[in-house]
Amino acid sequence: MKRLLSQRRIFSEARQFSTSRSLQEIRSILDLPDRIYPAYRRLLDSKLLLGVWPDPGPKNVLLVMKSNAANVRAAATEFAQYINENHPDINLIFEREPAESLEKEIAQPIYTLPSLPDFSPFPFTKETDGRTPVSSRTPSKAHGDIVAKQTGHPDIFAEDIGDPFHRKTDLILTLGGDGTILHAASLFSTAKAVPPMLSFSMGSLGFLGECHWKDHVKAFLTAIGKDNPNRKGYSGEFGVLRRGRLKVGVFDKTGQRVAGEDWPGNNLGDVHVMNEVNIHRGAKPHLAIVEVFVAGRKLTETVADGMIISTPTGSTAYSLSSGGAIVHPAVNSLLLTPICPRSLSFRPLVLPTDCIVTLRLSNRNRSSEVEVSVDGKKWGELKVNEEIRVWGEQLRNGRDGGWEGWEGGIPCVKINSEGESDGWVGGLNGLLKFNYPFGEEEL
Amino acid sequence: MKRLLSQRRIFSEARQFSTSRSLQEIRSILDLPDRIYPAYRRLLDSKLLLGVWPDPGPKNVLLVMKSNAANVRAAATEFAQYINENHPDINLIFEREPAESLEKEIAQPIYTLPSLPDFSPFPFTKETDGRTPVSSRTPSKAHGDIVAKQTGHPDIFAEDIGDPFHRKTDLILTLGGDGTILHAASLFSTAKAVPPMLSFSMGSLGFLGECHWKDHVKAFLTAIGKDNPNRKGYSGEFGVLRRGRLKVGVFDKTGQRVAGEDWPGNNLGDVHVMNEVNIHRGAKPHLAIVEVFVAGRKLTETVADGMIISTPTGSTAYSLSSGGAIVHPAVNSLLLTPICPRSLSFRPLVLPTDCIVTLRLSNRNRSSEVEVSVDGKKWGELKVNEEIRVWGEQLRNGRDGGWEGWEGGIPCVKINSEGESDGWVGGLNGLLKFNYPFGEEEL
Amino acid sequence: MKRLLSQRRIFSEARQFSTSRSLQEIRSILDLPDRIYPAYRRLLDSKLLLGVWPDPGPKNVLLVMKSNAANVRAAATEFAQYINENHPDINLIFEREPAESLEKEIAQPIYTLPSLPDFSPFPFTKETDGRTPVSSRTPSKAHGDIVAKQTGHPDIFAEDIGDPFHRKTDLILTLGGDGTILHAASLFSTAKAVPPMLSFSMGSLGFLGECHWKDHVKAFLTAIGKDNPNRKGYSGEFGVLRRGRLKVGVFDKTGQRVAGEDWPGNNLGDVHVMNEVNIHRGAKPHLAIVEVFVAGRKLTETVADGMIISTPTGSTAYSLSSGGAIVHPAVNSLLLTPICPRSLSFRPLVLPTDCIVTLRLSNRNRSSEVEVSVDGKKWGELKVNEEIRVWGEQLRNGRDGGWEGWEGGIPCVKINSEGESDGWVGGLNGLLKFNYPFGEEEL
Amino acid sequence: MKRLLSQRRIFSEARQFSTSRSLQEIRSILDLPDRIYPAYRRLLDSKLLLGVWPDPGPKNVLLVMKSNAANVRAAATEFAQYINENHPDINLIFEREPAESLEKEIAQPIYTLPSLPDFSPFPFTKETDGRTPVSSRTPSKAHGDIVAKQTGHPDIFAEDIGDPFHRKTDLILTLGGDGTILHAASLFSTAKAVPPMLSFSMGSLGFLGECHWKDHVKAFLTAIGKDNPNRKGYSGEFGVLRRGRLKVGVFDKTGQRVAGEDWPGNNLGDVHVMNEVNIHRGAKPHLAIVEVFVAGRKLTETVADGMIISTPTGSTAYSLSSGGAIVHPAVNSLLLTPICPRSLSFRPLVLPTDCIVTLRLSNRNRSSEVEVSVDGKKWGELKVNEEIRVWGEQLRNGRDGGWEGWEGGIPCVKINSEGESDGWVGGLNGLLKFNYPFGEEEL
Repeated sequence: MKRLLSQRRIFSEARQFSTSRSLQEIRSILDLPDRIYPAYRRLLDSKLLLGVWPDPGPKNVLLVMKSNAANVRAAATEFAQYINENHPDINLIFEREPAESLEKEIAQPIYTLPSLPDFSPFPFTKETDGRTPVSSRTPSKAHGDIVAKQTGHPDIFAEDIGDPFHRKTDLILTLGGDGTILHAASLFSTAKAVPPMLSFSMGSLGFLGECHWKDHVKAFLTAIGKDNPNRKGYSGEFGVLRRGRLKVGVFDKTGQRVAGEDWPGNNLGDVHVMNEVNIHRGAKPHLAIVEVFVAGRKLTETVADGMIISTPTGSTAYSLSSGGAIVHPAVNSLLLTPICPRSLSFRPLVLPTDCIVTLRLSNRNRSSEVEVSVDGKKWGELKVNEEIRVWGEQLRNGRDGGWEGWEGGIPCVKINSEGESDGWVGGLNGLLKFNYPFGEEEL
Repeated sequence: MKRLLSQRRIFSEARQFSTSRSLQEIRSILDLPDRIYPAYRRLLDSKLLLGVWPDPGPKNVLLVMKSNAANVRAAATEFAQYINENHPDINLIFEREPAESLEKEIAQPIYTLPSLPDFSPFPFTKETDGRTPVSSRTPSKAHGDIVAKQTGHPDIFAEDIGDPFHRKTDLILTLGGDGTILHAASLFSTAKAVPPMLSFSMGSLGFLGECHWKDHVKAFLTAIGKDNPNRKGYSGEFGVLRRGRLKVGVFDKTGQRVAGEDWPGNNLGDVHVMNEVNIHRGAKPHLAIVEVFVAGRKLTETVADGMIISTPTGSTAYSLSSGGAIVHPAVNSLLLTPICPRSLSFRPLVLPTDCIVTLRLSNRNRSSEVEVSVDGKKWGELKVNEEIRVWGEQLRNGRDGGWEGWEGGIPCVKINSEGESDGWVGGLNGLLKFNYPFGEEEL
Repeated sequence: MKRLLSQRRIFSEARQFSTSRSLQEIRSILDLPDRIYPAYRRLLDSKLLLGVWPDPGPKNVLLVMKSNAANVRAAATEFAQYINENHPDINLIFEREPAESLEKEIAQPIYTLPSLPDFSPFPFTKETDGRTPVSSRTPSKAHGDIVAKQTGHPDIFAEDIGDPFHRKTDLILTLGGDGTILHAASLFSTAKAVPPMLSFSMGSLGFLGECHWKDHVKAFLTAIGKDNPNRKGYSGEFGVLRRGRLKVGVFDKTGQRVAGEDWPGNNLGDVHVMNEVNIHRGAKPHLAIVEVFVAGRKLTETVADGMIISTPTGSTAYSLSSGGAIVHPAVNSLLLTPICPRSLSFRPLVLPTDCIVTLRLSNRNRSSEVEVSVDGKKWGELKVNEEIRVWGEQLRNGRDGGWEGWEGGIPCVKINSEGESDGWVGGLNGLLKFNYPFGEEEL
Repeated sequence: MKRLLSQRRIFSEARQFSTSRSLQEIRSILDLPDRIYPAYRRLLDSKLLLGVWPDPGPKNVLLVMKSNAANVRAAATEFAQYINENHPDINLIFEREPAESLEKEIAQPIYTLPSLPDFSPFPFTKETDGRTPVSSRTPSKAHGDIVAKQTGHPDIFAEDIGDPFHRKTDLILTLGGDGTILHAASLFSTAKAVPPMLSFSMGSLGFLGECHWKDHVKAFLTAIGKDNPNRKGYSGEFGVLRRGRLKVGVFDKTGQRVAGEDWPGNNLGDVHVMNEVNIHRGAKPHLAIVEVFVAGRKLTETVADGMIISTPTGSTAYSLSSGGAIVHPAVNSLLLTPICPRSLSFRPLVLPTDCIVTLRLSNRNRSSEVEVSVDGKKWGELKVNEEIRVWGEQLRNGRDGGWEGWEGGIPCVKINSEGESDGWVGGLNGLLKFNYPFGEEEL
């Protein structure tokens, strides 16, 4: 009931007289100016890229939060106040749930996805845990037409514009841990050009290079290009580690892309994953029988609990638990790691990203389907003779190395720590307890 | 005695009247015209490169043979006869040992390294197994001057020319198995631009993509650019899989490159390895304590039997036995794999090749040195506080993608097999018995 | 409809006039004489035991079949005919499903569990796949009283008698593969003294030492003690490999054994497993957090997909897929093997069987329960703070090494193959493809 | 020179007038009364045995020390003073090196092996590091006769008495770490009944259950049976964990035991090892080819750096580094673990100890021999077609479970720690860093 009221208020107020900044209110993300893009250049002697914002820098900041964590709520409120006082031209975007939850505690207007009273929840949305689901916000064209008519935004769901988050977000901030970063990445799983992402951790640090929250002001200034002490005026510069993603598509036995609601996002093209895609028998008692093809040539057939195809970023996640190698994120590759295979001789593989790896559910399976998950969330159920195709996204500048546009990968903002550019070595030792020696002092 | 005679004959004859082709004789490689270089272009949709010989193609072919194998001797003789009858303008080069051994059985003159009676064996040479040793043919300048004076070839050992094999070889052929390919690669371990290499196997096939000997005529025609049925005249084209090598240098505790005879080749710059460099306690009872640095930052300290740094090509060799992942040769990377570490948590690492990985023998070692081997042959003994530095060689075209020159990697000639461009998948299944399922038919 | 008729016929006919052997009919197992027990002695210099049947040997043979396999049906019919013609005093017992399915094809009467028209299916039974479920035939006393009254067998379900299979079976025969053997073992999962088991395979051989079906006559004679050529008269002797089982119980957070229908068999005491018990997150997205105690002392807390506790017999099953060691069945031990743990340093453990290993679902779990499976079949769902306790069954002679009675383990009849007593080495090489070498011929 | 003097003094003084206890002197161990043996019983509900000394308890204590460690020297001196003041009837035995080194610092006489001026060093001894070598004190009979004549001890080297340490030591104390315990065990490698061993650690604790030195008085009282507060008078009781050893013999291709000095101890029968025996290519470049037989049946042929056969005690040593499982010392078994095998499918094996495992060096080896080490020390070089045979020693009471005598295993004295009987679980967590979780707090 409260939800309906709050939803209705957004649109009546937002479209008519939401001019005063001091009002506590939730506005539609569609009212924001369109996104701006930084340009990127490769830094010499570094695995980092140099990003440069066009003056005067980013304006629309999407704040993705871990749910149900009091310290994260407190941090978000503190950050909103900091923005209100120091960067009044910067707009904060939230997912709907935290937007409604934080509305009363934030002084300035905040932005979120438009809610559609008559179509609530979106018919194309599988809500899970009250969070915007993976790959499920981009609607069909038919539905988009209806919505566009109702909302008075004729173009919002037109195919050439797509997801409002993709269209409006300049910079992503995450508050939480690795799980929150994966969730933020999932909001851009059908986007080719992901905005820069700056991540904060409230507690212990994860593999993905989060900053301590206590350093958030300095880190934020760095991310918006205002922390270069060696330069007068606005530099717009910031460093990023570009983490390559995998593109995943689901195809039926005729080679056609599977359409429909079963595989959100698949009808729009490939879904991009940050860590890994895996297939798993789930609760089925029978092992999965999976045929593996590399560049169309059959590599092997696995009988196993499942199979993981991982990015180097994901090499310290599920793949590692399943016995995979640890691959530095700068090694352009994908990992093929079986989960409990019925074989003594399936050593994990590291493959190039420019050939398609196909996992096909053999018709010898006893179970009629297996579960497919992307970045730890269930995506759909692969049926016998269906297949998923995986390869790396291309990482390239849009215009021959120039300044206008660039696509591929997730540009993760790096805040300088002492002496190490990418934080990877520290993560191995601090998080993995890599190479802890055993035994006594005598060697 | 026979050896001395034969050595003497080379130089007296070679320099004065070795003009008649029909004589059975061994000539000096220095009498050959200088090497020619193919150009390379990347093929679209392929992990292969397209090599193109300048018309009329390669002339100097180095034939590297497995020693002490009767079928290999027979194949070499057969091949020499084929060349004599079909390609009279092509010169065959051998290492000294097989040259002397095969001399009587080959009708045309053959070429080998100059032997120096007064300086035999080379003082800078550690002869092992009668084969030309790894990285040890390129002499010091001082020695070169003496030799140049004696031989009447004033420039042969000048620093800017270097190793006669490097200077004269257009194309490498190997007859044997993976071990023979590694040996051939070791002859070019200090060369930046390795000639294309075509490999034949007499028996079972190895990982490195050897052709069956029965196909040697067709394969050789392909390698010299004369097997393109779709093109009139001489195409010069052939396909290669470029296998990246690792550069390895030995440095003392002051950071200076270790000079002298202990580490052949190290004084000339980095030695290049095709499979791996490893350090190992050898016969010492005490485990080695090795500090590992990545890009100058300490990654870890290992207490282990040893440590391997491998190329993707070497990922199916010693690294695999030690638990390393299998990495496709097209993934530009290096593998760091410990040998029997005293740790439960040293998972093998895959690192980018553009940062230096350093292995330093800790001063906490009980033994005063450990063995260092390159591609399976002992190279030297690393002392406490000394270190080896390893990184990938750059793979690039010499002139901005054009046709004149290119360096880095070993260009392995690929003969088209059905449907698969690089042969890697077949090797996994045929050689590794990769992913052999276990248990009965019930699944 | 047919089923009801057939069920009715069993009891009307069986109790009144089922005397003529030539009738095709299904009789109640309760009409058979009670089971007889072989005695066992340890053989010197062998990992086998010598079993001896009391003269004149076993009479009640339970034939457990793989379902839905035409060749297995044919073999069963062939065997029944062989029995009918050669051993008319031997009675064949089947599970209900195959009994009804084979009735028309077998000339002599066959025996099965009593079916109860008014209580069909048993209220305490979770039927799966039409097969008698794991540990679910032993009823509550209350139900037993009702049934006893109806059937006129006043004692059949009394607590001191228990499961009809346990009470009546002298010898078990299995037709199928490893899965069928596990199923047969599950029929005796609450029995302490399992009858000898002789296993036949129709197709390829499994790990559990099946005989080829083609040798079934000789093997059967061996199993019933009639194949000793060195002895006049009836020897009764046969060799067995005794495979130790694990005892598993489920307990709540107060330490009480969990009663009720959720965990079939648990209310009767421990369930025995032949291969392994495992807990697994199943279809839940969150990893399981499991506390592990050994002899009451906390060993560790695992965050993983799951955890396996396996017998040596099960060391070549799921535990092997998860990275466990291969343990010979004669090593009295249990294996603790994690499934995809979030740790680099959980090496599989081999523990003694005389201390209890406890797996407790930590209250830190995000999911409220995990799946527990025994020998590959789901058993129940373990809730937070509940635990399973596992230890080895005692293997002992009932009366001080004498001849009358013995308990513990599954006595698997071994048919002499050339030179090897236990068949284990052959299984490693034939089934696991253990230690297949890789690489080319050069070593 | 000093050495010769000191040696001479031992025998002149020792045999003639070494009666005054206050003299600082080194006496011959042969002057001590013969060893006494405790009896053992199995404790219920425990993996420990109960040992009982005959009243009044042990008199001859062998103190084995880590060499070249100042804190160990200080502890030894402190302990000698404690003995001198509190247990004047207890005699301290040392190896020769520490005996001579500590002589001046210890007030009472101490005992060591007889030194033989005319035969110094023993011709059958390979001295390494100045320590008594593995298995090398027990001489040939011929030599023994000469020595016996010279020393006036006619029986000391007679075959039926053997090693003086074996004949005289009641109780072993070790000061050092795991390496010192292994060394102490090696002094009894040809003994069947090893005296109880109490181990102290100066620094961090090892796997073998050392006590902190700070608790040495209480621990020593426990070990000599004088620390039972619940019993009046002398109880003589102490707890031990019996660690089974492996018996190892070397045989030539005719099946004869290899005699001579190459394999110290082998001519006397099997050598016993506490941790493991391994074969390794050592400094040889070629992999070892080893045939493995179990109970005479060929299991496999390995091409590898080497092969380890380990006790459960050794499962946390070299075997663990090579990928072996962790086996509790109470599991009666041996581990077969390959070192860097050229196979993807050689999973470590756990085998029963009652069948012989044979490692035979194949005649397909390229190198003519490989190194064999026992408990981390080189033992000899195995030639092609020679083999080592390994099996477990029997663990049994000498007289049907009675009190007089018992053999097999190393009885390691356990000092009660809180709540855990065997210290194994603590070692896993404290020393191995077993199962350290990775990643951040979000699960």
